[in-house]
Amino acid sequence: MSKTATGRFFEDFQVGQTLRHATPRTLNAGDASLYSALYGARFAVQSADTFAQNLGYPRAPLDDLLAFHVVFGKTVPDVSLNAIANLGYAEGRFLKPVYPGDTLSAQSQVIGLKENSNRQSGVVYVRTQGANQDGETVVDYVRWVMVRKRDAAAPAPPAVAPSTAARVGPETLGGACPMVRGYDFGLAGSPHRFGDYRAGEKIDHVDGVTVEESDHMLATRLYQNTARVHFNQLSEGQGRFGRRLIYGGHVISLARALSFNGLANAFHIAAINGGRHVAPLFAGDTVFAWSEILETAELPDRDDVGALRVRMVATKNRAAADFPLRDGEGYDPSVILDFDIWVLIPR
Amino acid sequence: MSKTATGRFFEDFQVGQTLRHATPRTLNAGDASLYSALYGARFAVQSADTFAQNLGYPRAPLDDLLAFHVVFGKTVPDVSLNAIANLGYAEGRFLKPVYPGDTLSAQSQVIGLKENSNRQSGVVYVRTQGANQDGETVVDYVRWVMVRKRDAAAPAPPAVAPSTAARVGPETLGGACPMVRGYDFGLAGSPHRFGDYRAGEKIDHVDGVTVEESDHMLATRLYQNTARVHFNQLSEGQGRFGRRLIYGGHVISLARALSFNGLANAFHIAAINGGRHVAPLFAGDTVFAWSEILETAELPDRDDVGALRVRMVATKNRAAADFPLRDGEGYDPSVILDFDIWVLIPR
Amino acid sequence: MSKTATGRFFEDFQVGQTLRHATPRTLNAGDASLYSALYGARFAVQSADTFAQNLGYPRAPLDDLLAFHVVFGKTVPDVSLNAIANLGYAEGRFLKPVYPGDTLSAQSQVIGLKENSNRQSGVVYVRTQGANQDGETVVDYVRWVMVRKRDAAAPAPPAVAPSTAARVGPETLGGACPMVRGYDFGLAGSPHRFGDYRAGEKIDHVDGVTVEESDHMLATRLYQNTARVHFNQLSEGQGRFGRRLIYGGHVISLARALSFNGLANAFHIAAINGGRHVAPLFAGDTVFAWSEILETAELPDRDDVGALRVRMVATKNRAAADFPLRDGEGYDPSVILDFDIWVLIPR
Repeated sequence: MSKTATGRFFEDFQVGQTLRHATPRTLNAGDASLYSALYGARFAVQSADTFAQNLGYPRAPLDDLLAFHVVFGKTVPDVSLNAIANLGYAEGRFLKPVYPGDTLSAQSQVIGLKENSNRQSGVVYVRTQGANQDGETVVDYVRWVMVRKRDAAAPAPPAVAPSTAARVGPETLGGACPMVRGYDFGLAGSPHRFGDYRAGEKIDHVDGVTVEESDHMLATRLYQNTARVHFNQLSEGQGRFGRRLIYGGHVISLARALSFNGLANAFHIAAINGGRHVAPLFAGDTVFAWSEILETAELPDRDDVGALRVRMVATKNRAAADFPLRDGEGYDPSVILDFDIWVLIPR
Repeated sequence: MSKTATGRFFEDFQVGQTLRHATPRTLNAGDASLYSALYGARFAVQSADTFAQNLGYPRAPLDDLLAFHVVFGKTVPDVSLNAIANLGYAEGRFLKPVYPGDTLSAQSQVIGLKENSNRQSGVVYVRTQGANQDGETVVDYVRWVMVRKRDAAAPAPPAVAPSTAARVGPETLGGACPMVRGYDFGLAGSPHRFGDYRAGEKIDHVDGVTVEESDHMLATRLYQNTARVHFNQLSEGQGRFGRRLIYGGHVISLARALSFNGLANAFHIAAINGGRHVAPLFAGDTVFAWSEILETAELPDRDDVGALRVRMVATKNRAAADFPLRDGEGYDPSVILDFDIWVLIPR
Repeated sequence: MSKTATGRFFEDFQVGQTLRHATPRTLNAGDASLYSALYGARFAVQSADTFAQNLGYPRAPLDDLLAFHVVFGKTVPDVSLNAIANLGYAEGRFLKPVYPGDTLSAQSQVIGLKENSNRQSGVVYVRTQGANQDGETVVDYVRWVMVRKRDAAAPAPPAVAPSTAARVGPETLGGACPMVRGYDFGLAGSPHRFGDYRAGEKIDHVDGVTVEESDHMLATRLYQNTARVHFNQLSEGQGRFGRRLIYGGHVISLARALSFNGLANAFHIAAINGGRHVAPLFAGDTVFAWSEILETAELPDRDDVGALRVRMVATKNRAAADFPLRDGEGYDPSVILDFDIWVLIPR
């Protein structure tokens, strides 16, 4: 048995299989600081212990996406080392806050497999849970990814495509958010609350940020995500793009940080309804973001926060003032991310 | 009311206005480590809990400039999002040490306004206080900045230019420095103490450091400073310089870290008397620094430390062995920073 | 006496001299996070408090090499500011774990001096100890370095070349490793234990990582290593290589992190038997690594872990599948590091 992991190929997966992922990771104050330095997010809840404590948190929680990326990173050696593309997400739920000092580990179940017609690859669907040191699930999500076959001639299992919800039901949201009292809108940087947003409203987040090779590699290593396409210019220089591909999650975090300007009080991502990495991002590109409010929802038995369903779109090398999205049948060539989330915001 | 902040223009300010800035920020050990990685400062007090405790601190304080940059960053969305240039500083005082775990917030008063004769812009003078979670002011300073007008035809308020002190009085220094006992000069890296420095003495700090895009953007995001000129190559590429402009505070911290070589025991910046960002810095440039001792002062009722008033000059792409400063009426073209501070050093 | 340190030259050293190095440094959770972001190591013991505690550690220890680099960094101003090359290591032993919150300081003894025949430089041998805040030595090693003479005509001391052991005796290993119980191989990412490795076995660590200027400068500043060749493009552009030279320790850490893929359970470096920085690394280069098991050894009175003596080789811009090492009398031109260590791994 080779001591070197080369990752599973499509024909190595079986529906029903449980993958227990390696390398538990204690997140701490240093990770919070690095996350700040990498994205510059300004949400007050995650920035200040005092602000979080005034609301009812024991201390400032870590950014939801930091927890997500760390859990995602653990799945890479078992799921996507031989991936061609990360295709989609569904049914993502943030169930418990993650604090500095918490240790995250992860496992996944294979819930679907579908060979591509060219027989060179297939789609693997996994449901992943990230848990803390007490065994509580902090994040749970489905993703699907296109994985190479080792041998095109290998027989394919019967196709199983799981059905996933079009969106997470808003009535299930809020487990990772304590009852919020005493939210200081002035200190948070914006007066806009739940009732100020309307379905159909679009918001240009204005600012742009240029990404460097060091930035995305630091981030991706922080998440212990080892996918080779992000790190090895020698091999990627010979590959599809001729360049290192930036981890898609880096784009999500950049867009989320940019979205502060317009959604400053939407302090918590409660769910990921879906998402597509529409096009790749490379170092030197400048990322912009805009959002559309798809839906607003009250939460049962909660008068403190409401939920906004937000389509968060990221573009590259094109400002988002005119909300670029479609171009005929497909996406506008500037669009790199089309992400659908529920965020919570004080009422 | 637009949900997206675009910043105040010159005509939006009023003398007497108080601006309460957003996003309180808990600084922690991770910020200290990142600050180390960004600048490589070697002052023993800020580097080691044991060394600081021997002196009388409860633990190693954070670098004075880290606290300054974080406070400064908070003012940007309210003061300088539409700034053309950061013109000067005065009356900066460090009043309390900042420790990991402290949460900083900030507010500013508009203390002066002066339209430029071209009517396109004007100078805004603010006095800013950064406070910790106990409401104690940790840093207090005046800065003035040139801000664009939204509309050149907008009427200007009567000109008010505040008078600021030429220097902070040495008799007011030392609030952020406990009574220092048992300072170990050997362990700190230099035998030179207060009495070894003379007014008029010039010190070349010898070393140079080249700055990369990732470095300054990581730093500036760490400070939650969102000024767009630092991040967006797509827009800056079309702008004045064709490049991203490096945050002036990054230069201050680089020069301060370089100044260890020659001022190793000047462990605390007690005051900022004044300062000018003489010319812009860009990625790829190499920064050097030199200092002139302008003045030495004993502190009332303190036999432990004395104060050196230091002119700290940073240059780019030119070593500082011959102390570049003036070129006729103006500055030598290599000079990027002319900074005037009080530092404390054991007697 | 100049206030600016310019470093010792060869003729400034004396055999028997003790150098007490400056700047004690408290390592904390932020340093652990940055180390993760810089190298992406995935060893479970250093990644998770829970995993470490299950084994018998009070919490996750810091990476052995982080402690090594910090101690090494302290020696630079006293030993190698005028170095031409870092020639070798021997008798390196990791004696105590280092935890977040520990403060490291360092001292060295000059144990050998040998002028080069060209009289322009000479070899300085030092034995260095890094100690924690309780005065316990955590790491102890010999290194030798070629140092310039200030004046070629200066008389040289009699040559003293210390004899160093070819390898650290395995019977002395393990001081920094508690008795390990309950090691979870699944969670650690690999089933391979002590008994699965054989002397003579070679392992290609497969992955490659491209290094950027920001990465290595952040790392080297984190270690407070001030050697100018790493930072100053203006002067290095005129120098031997025309470029900034990457700190050799950065290569060691990159190779160690890559070696996880093949040596996932070899969680602790117990000793450095020897090592050579065979060729320089520059930004833009891609680093690979492979290992050869030179020897396996049981430890006296320990049934929990065994020791593997590993030759860890790093290459640049060439994958290591065919284990590049020699080319005639010398090294293959791709080889940049030839390192000989003892690692501990559960039995």
